[in-house]
Parts: sequence; C-alpha cells; structure tokens
Amino acid sequence: MRHQIFHHDASVFYVHKTPTAQGWDLKIRLRCSPEAPIERAAIRTLVDGEPYFAWGERLDAQTVGASGQWWEVSVSTRAKIFAYRWLIGLRGDEWLWLNGEGVWEHTVPDHADFRVQLDGSAPHEHLCSSVYQIFPDRFARSAQTEVRGLPEWSTGWLNPDPAQWNDDAAQTKLFGGDLWGIIDHLDYIQNLGFDTIYTTPFFEARSSHRYDAHSFEHVDADLGGDEALIALVDACHQREMRFLGDLTTNHTGVTHEWFRKAMADPDSVERGFYFFDETGDYAKWLGVETLPKLNYNSAELRHRMFGPSGVVQKYLKPPFNMDGWRIDVANMTGRFGQSDLYESVASELRAAVDAAGGDKVLVAEHAHDFTLDIRGETFHGAMNYSGFTRPVWEWVTAMDERTPIFMGSPVPVRPQTGEKFVDTTEDFSAQMTWNVRAASFNLVTSHDTARLMDIAGDSQRARVALALCYTLPGVPMILYGEEYCLASTGDFNCRVPIPWEDVENQTIDNRELLRVLGGLRKSGSALPSGSLRWVQVSEDVVVFMREHQEQTILVCLSRCGDNPVAIDDEFFPGRAPDTVPLGALSLDNGKPVASLDQGIAVAVWNGAQ
Amino acid sequence: MRHQIFHHDASVFYVHKTPTAQGWDLKIRLRCSPEAPIERAAIRTLVDGEPYFAWGERLDAQTVGASGQWWEVSVSTRAKIFAYRWLIGLRGDEWLWLNGEGVWEHTVPDHADFRVQLDGSAPHEHLCSSVYQIFPDRFARSAQTEVRGLPEWSTGWLNPDPAQWNDDAAQTKLFGGDLWGIIDHLDYIQNLGFDTIYTTPFFEARSSHRYDAHSFEHVDADLGGDEALIALVDACHQREMRFLGDLTTNHTGVTHEWFRKAMADPDSVERGFYFFDETGDYAKWLGVETLPKLNYNSAELRHRMFGPSGVVQKYLKPPFNMDGWRIDVANMTGRFGQSDLYESVASELRAAVDAAGGDKVLVAEHAHDFTLDIRGETFHGAMNYSGFTRPVWEWVTAMDERTPIFMGSPVPVRPQTGEKFVDTTEDFSAQMTWNVRAASFNLVTSHDTARLMDIAGDSQRARVALALCYTLPGVPMILYGEEYCLASTGDFNCRVPIPWEDVENQTIDNRELLRVLGGLRKSGSALPSGSLRWVQVSEDVVVFMREHQEQTILVCLSRCGDNPVAIDDEFFPGRAPDTVPLGALSLDNGKPVASLDQGIAVAVWNGAQ
Repeated sequence: MRHQIFHHDASVFYVHKTPTAQGWDLKIRLRCSPEAPIERAAIRTLVDGEPYFAWGERLDAQTVGASGQWWEVSVSTRAKIFAYRWLIGLRGDEWLWLNGEGVWEHTVPDHADFRVQLDGSAPHEHLCSSVYQIFPDRFARSAQTEVRGLPEWSTGWLNPDPAQWNDDAAQTKLFGGDLWGIIDHLDYIQNLGFDTIYTTPFFEARSSHRYDAHSFEHVDADLGGDEALIALVDACHQREMRFLGDLTTNHTGVTHEWFRKAMADPDSVERGFYFFDETGDYAKWLGVETLPKLNYNSAELRHRMFGPSGVVQKYLKPPFNMDGWRIDVANMTGRFGQSDLYESVASELRAAVDAAGGDKVLVAEHAHDFTLDIRGETFHGAMNYSGFTRPVWEWVTAMDERTPIFMGSPVPVRPQTGEKFVDTTEDFSAQMTWNVRAASFNLVTSHDTARLMDIAGDSQRARVALALCYTLPGVPMILYGEEYCLASTGDFNCRVPIPWEDVENQTIDNRELLRVLGGLRKSGSALPSGSLRWVQVSEDVVVFMREHQEQTILVCLSRCGDNPVAIDDEFFPGRAPDTVPLGALSLDNGKPVASLDQGIAVAVWNGAQ
Repeated sequence: MRHQIFHHDASVFYVHKTPTAQGWDLKIRLRCSPEAPIERAAIRTLVDGEPYFAWGERLDAQTVGASGQWWEVSVSTRAKIFAYRWLIGLRGDEWLWLNGEGVWEHTVPDHADFRVQLDGSAPHEHLCSSVYQIFPDRFARSAQTEVRGLPEWSTGWLNPDPAQWNDDAAQTKLFGGDLWGIIDHLDYIQNLGFDTIYTTPFFEARSSHRYDAHSFEHVDADLGGDEALIALVDACHQREMRFLGDLTTNHTGVTHEWFRKAMADPDSVERGFYFFDETGDYAKWLGVETLPKLNYNSAELRHRMFGPSGVVQKYLKPPFNMDGWRIDVANMTGRFGQSDLYESVASELRAAVDAAGGDKVLVAEHAHDFTLDIRGETFHGAMNYSGFTRPVWEWVTAMDERTPIFMGSPVPVRPQTGEKFVDTTEDFSAQMTWNVRAASFNLVTSHDTARLMDIAGDSQRARVALALCYTLPGVPMILYGEEYCLASTGDFNCRVPIPWEDVENQTIDNRELLRVLGGLRKSGSALPSGSLRWVQVSEDVVVFMREHQEQTILVCLSRCGDNPVAIDDEFFPGRAPDTVPLGALSLDNGKPVASLDQGIAVAVWNGAQ
C-alpha cells in the first residue's frame, strides 16, 4: 500500500498557489498519520537545473481542518511545471524520500517526483465534465437521413445493399447516423448525467469511421453538413453542455484534396505535406494505404492546420464554437524515422487552440506511457489508456477465451488483483503532472476497443469499471451504449447502432448509475480536483478517498460479491457522511462499515473534514 | 536481486549492431537461467511514437558461447537512441516484462526501458581509459614556479605571506603548482596505471580553483601559459596518454574581460552575454558575486564559445590538441528561470567538440539524476555522482560524527547495505543509455568532495571504493593523492598539496592496486564495454561479473573482513580463470571460492565462456 503513513499528491488539497509578479508562491503540505515519528520535512526541487531544499513547518491539524500531523513548506518559483519530492526526517537521524511512487529508504532518480503545472492547465469546465463518446454513424439516424439517403460510395461489392439500422455492424457499412440524430437525443444524453459530447470525426471521408478525411473544409454532408454541427454545438451550449471534435493531425485520407494535388503535381506545395520517397511511394499510418502520413517539415501545412484560418481554429471559433479537440494518434504526429517534430507540432497545435479563445481543451490519443509526451503545456491531457484503461481491464476482466486483447498488445489481458491494479495505476500516474492526470480521459472502452461486457463479463464488474471512470482523478469518457452494456458484434466490434426501438428491454440498465455518478462530479470539488488516497486494497476490494478542502468522497468498490467492508478509520472524517448516494455506510460503535450495492458504495462529506 | 533468472543489458554482450543504408540492423539477445520456464520472448519498442513488438528465436547456447537459455530478436531501426524492453512468455500463458529495473508482473511505464545509443557514442579510447584528476595549483610546483614567483593577487590581508608547499591547504591560498609540474611527474602518473589526465581549469582567474575565469584567451601564465599546456598535451600524446580540460560554460569570473565590458558599457554586445535586471544587477551562479551567469540567448556568446575559433574548439585543435572537455555545472548551463536553453546549448557544445575532429570526449558535471539531460547525443557522459558516487559512499561509509555530507545534501550520508547499494546504483543506471553509463566518470572523490579516508574511514573500505571505480561500467576518475589516501585538512578540504618529499612514508599505499586495476581495463573488453550481472549481494559483500564475447571478469568485494566467499556457480564459466590479478580463486570440488586480499578478489577469463 502506498502513502499510508505519509501522504501527498500535487492536487489543490496539498498544493496552494498564489500568483506573484515573478511567478508563483506555493504552499505545499504533507500529511502524516498521527503516530508517524516525523521530526522535520523538506521539499527538494530543482532551480535552474540544480537541487534546492526548502524546509517546512509543522502545522496545527485544526488549521488544516483534517486529521493527522501536517507540515507545510513555502517556496517561490518561476517554473511552469514545478517538480519536487519530500525529504522526511525521522526520530534518530533516519530519513526517507517520498515521491509519487511512495516512500524510499534509498535515494531514487527524479522520474517519479511530484509535478504540478502552474500555467495553462485545463479549464475548470473540462475538469468537472462527464463525457459521452459518440460514433456519429452508429448513434442515431434523423429524419434527414431518410431524405438524404446513403451515399453512393457506401454500397458496392462489399455491401451490395444500403445498410439497415438493425443490420450487423460491419465496419465497412455506412449506417447513416448523423449530427441531427444527436440533436434529437440531447435530452436523452443529458438525462444520463453527461454534460459533454465528444464525437469521432465529422469530416467527409470514405469510411464509416471518417478517420480518412477527404477534406477538412466542411462537415460531411452525410452527417448534416456545417449547418448540423453549428446547430448541435449551439444546442449543447444552450443546455450548458460542451462539445468536442476529433481531428487527424497525423494523416489524411488518400482521397484528401491535399493528397490528390500532391500525387498529381510533384511541384505542388501539397507535395511537401506528405513523405514521398524516390520511387514516388508515400509514408502511411502503420502501412495503411488509405492513410498517407502528414509531414510537418512543411510550413504551409502548419499554417493550414494551425494558422488563424486553419483547421484547428476554424471549428473552435464562430460559427462552430466547439469546445475542444481530441487529436487522433497524437503520439505519432510529427514523428517519422529520425525526424521528431512532435514537440513543435504539439506546441503549435496548443497555441492554435489557445488562440481560439475561451475555455477550449486539447486531449491526445495516446495508448502507451505518455508521461514524457504530455505534461500539460501542449495537450491538456490524454486518453488515459496506459494509466487507467489497461489496469482497469486487468482488475475487472472476467478472463475467458472470449476476453479481448488490449489494444496493440500481442498477449492476452493478464488478470490482476486489486493490489496490482493500484500498483499499475500509480506507477503510471506517479510520473504525470497532476493536472494532466486530472484532465485526461478515464475511459474503460472507446470506439477502438471491445465493449464493456466483453471485458467485464458480468454487470457488477461493469458497474465497478464505470464507477472507477467517474471517481478516480480524471474526466470520465463513456462510449455510447454502455448505459445498456450493449453487446458487441463479431470479433469484439463495438461500433453497434443503438437499438432505439428496444432500449427499454435491455437486460442491463446503467442509466441511473451514470446519472448518480455524473451528479457526484457536479456536487463539489472532490472528484474534479481533490487528492487521491488509497484507504485499503485487497484482491477484490478497493477503497479510496478523494479529498478537497470543501468536500470529501469515500469510494468503496468490490469486483465480486457485496460483503460489508469495514473501513479503516484512521483518516476517516470524524462524523457520519452528509449523503450516501450509492450503497450505504453505517457507523458500528464508531467503526465505519460500507454496505455495497452491486459492488459500489459512495459516501460524501461536505465542508472540511 | 536483479535479473537473476532473466538477464539483459544494452551492452555489446547482448546488442549487436550493423549499419545499413537506412540506419541499423540490431540483434538483441536475452539470457535466461537453464531452468527458466520461458516459452517465447519479444522486444517492445516504439516506432514513430507507436509501440511495436518483435518476437525472438531461441538460440543454441553453444552458438552464443555462454551457458543458459538464449533468445534473439532481429530488428531494424532508424532511431538514434533505441529504447526497448522484453516481453517474456512463460509456460501456462503467463508473461512478464523485463526492463532496466528488473522483472515485472504488471505493466510499467517506459522510463526504465533499456536504451542503446546507435550514433555518436564516446570514442573507444575514452571507454578504455583510467583518469587521474589533478587540481593544478596543488599537484606539483616546477622549477618555473620559483622563477615566476606567486602572483601579486595571491597575497593580501587573507594570506599575508606567499604560501609554502607544506602550508595548511586553505582554499584562499595559491600554492603555485603548475602544468610544468605535471609534466615533471608524467612517469609517476603513468606508473600508477593512468592513461588520462583531467585537470580542473587552467585559465587565468582570481582563485586557486580558477572556476572564475578572467579570460578564455590563454592558459594562465602562473600555470606556465599556453606553452606549458601545449607541451603537456604533447608529452601525454607521446606516451599514448590523453588530456582533458575543464570549462565553465555556465558562468565566468567577475573579472572576465567580457563581464568588464558588459558592466562598463550597457550598449556593448557583451552586455547580452549576461543577465542584467532593471536595477543593473546581474544573475550569479548560486548567488556567488564573483560568478556572473552566462546568457545563451546571445548568438555572439554562442559564437565565441562554440564557433570555429571559439573557446571550445580552440583548445581541442592544434597547437593545443586536447582530447576533450569536462564541463562545469553542465546541469545549469542555459537554464535561468523560465528560460531553458539547455538542449540547444548542449547540442552546439557537442557540435563544436565534434567539429574539432578526432576522438574527442565531452563529459558533464551533473550531481543529481542526469538521465533526461544526458543521453549521449550531446554529452558523452557525466561525472556519475548520482548513480555511482553517492551509493558507493553509502555502502563504504564508516559513518561517525566526522563523516562528510554528500554534496548538496542537507542530511548526513545514510549507511546502506550491499543490497541497497545495488538498488540505488541500478535505479539510476536503469534509466541511462548504456553508452552514457559506460562513458561516465565513476568517481568516489573529486576536488569538490571530501577525501577517500574521510568517507571510508579505513584502508579496506577505501580499496573497495577504488576497485568499484574501475570495475563497474564507467570510466574511473581518481582524485590525485588517493594513491596514498592523503588526509584532508580542516572541514574536509581535499585540495591538499601532494607531499612529494614524504610520499614513501605514507601509511596507506594504493599505488600497486591502482596499477593492477588500470592494467585490467587495458587487458580486454570486459571492463570497458562488457555487460554487468550481479552474482550475489549481501550486507557486506558484493559479487558481480562483467561479460564480453572476448573476456569475462569476476569481481568480489567485501567492505569488511576477508572471509572466503563461495560463488554461486550457476552462471560461472565452466573452467578455472586464466588469471587472478587480485586475491585468489579456488575450485573446491568444482565449487568456486574467492579468497579476498583486503576486501578484493578479481578473476579473469579470456575468450568465450
């Protein structure tokens, strides 16, 4: 178990910042259990590349409004990202290090030092949000779909007949869902507790997924065109909801107008947008012929993508007014062989997002360790596949011969205990800027994975996985249809149309659960920005607290069974909770015991502990 | 213990590279103990930022020429630094990860992936070298010193009388050692087994340490001037020895001609070489008034430092012909507040070193975790204070009230067991490019630390510390005078003059030990470039092997006592060693037992195992 006797993370519960003319004044706190033999504490940071130590003072627990022993260090900094660790002096001249990976008796390198981003964090609206991911072709048809009909290219030898909504969801088919169909269901989405919609790409393309853009100039007419996107974002804003788009900065489709010019005319400026070798062949995303890779050595490409009238800004500004972008394969963008332009491309991308004004957000697709690529100053966060999705799969997996393989992995998911789930999550999180962790998507499934029931196998494990998305640090991103644990088709194909005519007859119904969890995120600061402390962890049960000056939330999850869970009361708030939105919590002779409802209990305290 | 059942590092023992038109073909091997239940093995690397897996084939142990089970992966890459880890499949569908930190049952982030640098590694001559560090003012006077006399500035109210060679070695005194004095003792140095001399700065300054340069135009006349440096390097080269200088790229002295111009004329180009605030005050190295910090926003400063006629190249080219530079506080160079120009300054510095031609080397001073700053493509290596010096101190320390504090640390050295020594060393090394580790200085003391006896407390621990410098991966750098374990003066001041008239009467004499260890480094490839495998580790005893296709060396060290050490024979070469240069090794019924000589036994096998 981590940080039981000494606890710290870089959340606002422990790090208070005040702007100064030069940068920031920080007050950084350390929490220790009442009996910890601590005599002094310092933080170590780097100033201009050189180690620097600042000693702390003991605080009164009353002042802090929370139990335990508290120490506070005051330090000023001009850094954009402040990295540090604790040096803890014990009685008898012993000392320890505390970093994001835990307590160490020997000196360790800096990679797991705590990190707090001081400038340019994700907007507050994003941190509080709950995101519903929609694959537009498969979410809902609208009246317009019938008027429009399906495009000519969507039928052919692969799919001789136009798809019917209840057909098997083969990837090659176009089903005809559109943005008007989303507008038709905004009440539905909002009633599920979501306040943000993120759709996969809406540009014209030659596939149902549309990651092979034909042009970035307009919204695909088959999705309703520019008019539908403008209407959709406007309708979201009227409901105080947000809307995020999806952009491929790494490649275009082979039918893209830029690529066609590049192929037709070797002297065209667009030729420089791609990588051509001496044989005239072009670089492709993972070798896929239809996806030529973009070459950011071209200043004109950067201008068209990131300039004032470029793709990125266009859809964030009126009349579109989107609230941000998710960037496809951000990890590969700008990288090709020995040329690594990732940092400069990501910087220009962020500058374009910031230039559009307002509380825009930028989230990277990144399916392995992103801690060096994403520190908050470019992307606000990532789709947290490595530090969240994979360990959640490993803990909740039902593991039978039908269990899907985690994306990109050549070996099956390895089932893990609650302890290993925490280890994995924390090993990745320990190296993240806290702000990046809080701004990243906690997702258990997406349009690129199997569906929740393929992984979890039963409804309790599915519920627990969903609860983790909402309650661990990060922004929950839930794939459309998981409100019913829709079944995938074929070989774990998750891109199934929502069976609107049949939704009231689904075996599993997570709608109320999502509503409660989404409401919890809006109920105070604990889930959007509170600290994380693991209270107790065993093979099947995980208990943690999210703590903030203004709210405390206890989460108790069991992947199987609903045995009552006696909660270690050392750091437990000294009073009964204000609300218990899920499950129940009793105080048995002052000892807290959680009663789970299908694997979940959540208790909330408002105000200081 | 690390890597006992599965072993790998990024040395040439495991990684074979062949250049191709596009980059490199690599053959990467994994060694497993004979009974390991391994069924398959792959490496995972990143290609253009995306994970990529390559499966290996089982090799015949005979083919490899070493015991155990072997797997080999073939992969091509265009990367400059190739990072990877092993995915190991066991019987029964279980699998493990192996990275530089060891074996993992859960997925871990990328920071400890193995790393091999494919272009621009340190020259072979450097990897084989044994370095003698000289503080010129305190090593030896020459006949010229008497002729020249001590400079006027060296006497005053602090030091009313010119220093005598046997005075107490106060830092403020100038003792009058010079470069001619080094030339006079080249036989002596070479007889100690050293083939490289590294001197602290030789530029004119206003201190005995000369890190406050008055000019970079000439060698200090009080050290013998340009003439003496040219003669010294020439004399070294005649003996096939190398010579390294020491440069402050981070700051100059306050009397430097650039700084005087900058102060005198706010419109001068030199004004831009430093950081002046609106009050006219200037930025200083750690607040020291005499050391104004250089500002690499100035293109002219970069030109004067790194250009074709700049400081860096001048002394590497004729007539000086030095073999490389050690760069003072490299970690701070180019870093000031929110401005971090470190990468571009380090790149220009390296380009200047490469432009000078020949087998030049560039080593950074860097006293904390340098794994992100130094990956080999700029600095070849660092003074390995964090991954070598500090853990060695912690293991060999005698720890009494006189034990010195490790540089920059606010707390005493914490004595550690052999196990923790290995953990600390490996935690740092796991994140280094292998080539950087091999090119970095293994030092136990320097002109900036206490002396060996202050740390070790007795001669056996001192011997063991010296042996670690020569036998772990890295280039040994030994402070002048440690051949006698000279006593420091006052508050751990190591900068004592060598008592030439008294050297035959020293209590401790490490001269023969250094000769043998230096000879070992020249005897084959195991120490300069072989792999490292920890064979057994306990509180007081550390045993490891350095393995290369052409040579194997076993090192057995005990910090106290000379009890025979029975060596685990699992991976032991199946024959008696060819030589046993230190201690003895017997085979007792085929079981190897090391007999230590004051803490050390070393055995050598030539050819394949």
